[in-house]
Amino acid sequence: MTITIIGTVAFDTIETPIGKHEKLLGGSASYAALAASVFSDVAIISIVGKDFPNNYLSLLKSKNINVDGIKVSQNDTFAWEGYYEKDMNQAFTKETQLNCLTELDPEVPDDFKNSKIVFLANVDPVLQQKAIKEFTSPQLIVLDTMNYWIEHKSYDLGQALKQVDVLIINDQEARQISGNNNVILAVKEIAKMGPKRIIVKKGEHGSIMFNGNDYFCVPALPVKKVVDPTGAGDSFAGGFVGYLASKKIFTEQTFRNAVVVGTLASSTTVQGFGVSTISKLNRGKIGELFSGFKEITTLPSAL
Amino acid sequence: MTITIIGTVAFDTIETPIGKHEKLLGGSASYAALAASVFSDVAIISIVGKDFPNNYLSLLKSKNINVDGIKVSQNDTFAWEGYYEKDMNQAFTKETQLNCLTELDPEVPDDFKNSKIVFLANVDPVLQQKAIKEFTSPQLIVLDTMNYWIEHKSYDLGQALKQVDVLIINDQEARQISGNNNVILAVKEIAKMGPKRIIVKKGEHGSIMFNGNDYFCVPALPVKKVVDPTGAGDSFAGGFVGYLASKKIFTEQTFRNAVVVGTLASSTTVQGFGVSTISKLNRGKIGELFSGFKEITTLPSAL
Repeated sequence: MTITIIGTVAFDTIETPIGKHEKLLGGSASYAALAASVFSDVAIISIVGKDFPNNYLSLLKSKNINVDGIKVSQNDTFAWEGYYEKDMNQAFTKETQLNCLTELDPEVPDDFKNSKIVFLANVDPVLQQKAIKEFTSPQLIVLDTMNYWIEHKSYDLGQALKQVDVLIINDQEARQISGNNNVILAVKEIAKMGPKRIIVKKGEHGSIMFNGNDYFCVPALPVKKVVDPTGAGDSFAGGFVGYLASKKIFTEQTFRNAVVVGTLASSTTVQGFGVSTISKLNRGKIGELFSGFKEITTLPSAL
Repeated sequence: MTITIIGTVAFDTIETPIGKHEKLLGGSASYAALAASVFSDVAIISIVGKDFPNNYLSLLKSKNINVDGIKVSQNDTFAWEGYYEKDMNQAFTKETQLNCLTELDPEVPDDFKNSKIVFLANVDPVLQQKAIKEFTSPQLIVLDTMNYWIEHKSYDLGQALKQVDVLIINDQEARQISGNNNVILAVKEIAKMGPKRIIVKKGEHGSIMFNGNDYFCVPALPVKKVVDPTGAGDSFAGGFVGYLASKKIFTEQTFRNAVVVGTLASSTTVQGFGVSTISKLNRGKIGELFSGFKEITTLPSAL
């Protein structure tokens, strides 16, 4: 098994200026796994409720995503309802029903324990720490988190960060973790907490990957019609780990390419509701997007 | 005369989390001319008061900036006082004393009338229109503006836009002019108003240049210690027109290079108070910054 993703599989009810959709397939692990599946074999560790429809699991399976690690609870599925206002830069939560999510226990099936890459998507850092122990010798541990855990479980998050290779966060979270407003200085503080590599996502403004004193800046792919930003960050992370897992060795260039793939995956996600667009992404399409992206970003060889 | 810049030359009193400085040399034309002077001959059309110190004019002259078009009024110099809070993304105005600025009349001395590039920095669009008529056959007219004119003089701004080749604005202004929150759609609306090329500046997130359906995205150069963001946008525009003026023909590549030079100029400005850093920029330093910038932004040739 190449990548194992620990995260949520959920029902999302989403309203954006473009429209409203109820009980879509959502959750950090769903988006990340769909994006990662373009390049690699993926397994999900998660939990859903007895009300979770088979066709959602079938969609994941149709992309060769291993769902044997998704437990089925007697409770209902974790459900999020939210909306976006006109500029769609921020998600507003209307309701969160944790339901079966409180039972999530990252027990990793034996045949996933030798995963090359472990992606700890956004869940309680206590569970993230527990999950890390389940794997025999992952080459790379990648962690995502959110403002809630930074605020309410900073100690546990700190413990988890000691063990991860790559942290993926957004610029607000970087400021929140470090207490520093300048992103470069914020990242320097966070690097002391453990992660060797830190990727700061800035939504429509692209991302920056930091590695010691080196960094790599990538703009976002401009999107004419943003339909639904939900899952953009998870898709970024999924594209990133998916690309890495498809390579034998991880050089600086491999990591840079992975950031570019993450960028293309997240721009794909925002162009449709829920997973409707990311679940149709494939290598051919990534290649086309990459050519276009190079065209609009390449600097001159000299001035 | 290669570039003529119509804009303000002012006293700036600036407070940032790093410190406070009074009556610094400021104004859109000062920053833009200093940035442009790295690559080209520049002249300023502006007005200052009887209290304007000779050493500020000497500084401009020492960079080969022609100041013959800066009138000296019997009134005091235009003065702005403002501050920045912790994240320094927004300037807050404490006081604006227009003083002699109300007398600004863009009469262009005869030997500037054949300027190759005219840069209409941020002043009243009525004056911008008047200035355009003063020139015989500029190859390129570039215009900058601000929220105040968009709000209070939208008709006049519209008339000016009909005559310009390149509009340089920030993302908020693009949304404000067009009423559209999506930057790509906003720019499509603005393009109908006249400008063939539109550059949207996004501060620490870089910029995008639009030309019909083509665009070019450039991240900002990450800066470890932002000291004073005042003049960053003017320096961008100055670097942009300065680079262009140094080239015989304007190809798409020339415009892209010019955006990169603007990016490097604005990142230079924010690293010191007032014009202290931009006034020390030179071609050698631009070359070094460019090499570093390429290093942190170059995409792989293939995935």
